[in-house]
Amino acid sequence: MYVIVVYDVDVKRVSKVHRFLRTHLHWRQNSVFEGEVTRAQLYEIKRTLEDLIEDNDSVLIYELPGSNFTLHVIGTDKSPVGEII
Amino acid sequence: MYVIVVYDVDVKRVSKVHRFLRTHLHWRQNSVFEGEVTRAQLYEIKRTLEDLIEDNDSVLIYELPGSNFTLHVIGTDKSPVGEII
Repeated sequence: MYVIVVYDVDVKRVSKVHRFLRTHLHWRQNSVFEGEVTRAQLYEIKRTLEDLIEDNDSVLIYELPGSNFTLHVIGTDKSPVGEII
Repeated sequence: MYVIVVYDVDVKRVSKVHRFLRTHLHWRQNSVFEGEVTRAQLYEIKRTLEDLIEDNDSVLIYELPGSNFTLHVIGTDKSPVGEII
């Protein structure tokens, strides 16, 4: 499955979350990661993020059935991966 | 089609981009919008964003074939919509 991860966390925890996600996924843009993962990897990503974040932090993981989405880039693509429209 | 819009724009332009996207889509989290749009609406969103942003700004629009993705929320859901896992 393909996932898009976006997060809105306290500035104190941003680098911790960023460093962790970078070990599993592709950095796309400020607070945005994406990539192909297995069910087990998704479970581990969720479990670790639950430990890393606190209180009012928020992480959204969009789990897509596959990577058959289309990506439209407007302005600068800060970290190109795959096909761009 | 369903779209997820994430943006990384200069602080001077954040509120302009936010105000515009709010007229078409659901605010989800800091710099993240999503929602169902037609092809014509997607075209207008892209065209208007091209006018609003500058230089090193970046907007990514993930166009999904439908809304059959699964959303995993970790921590706080800043603006619930639809089904949450």
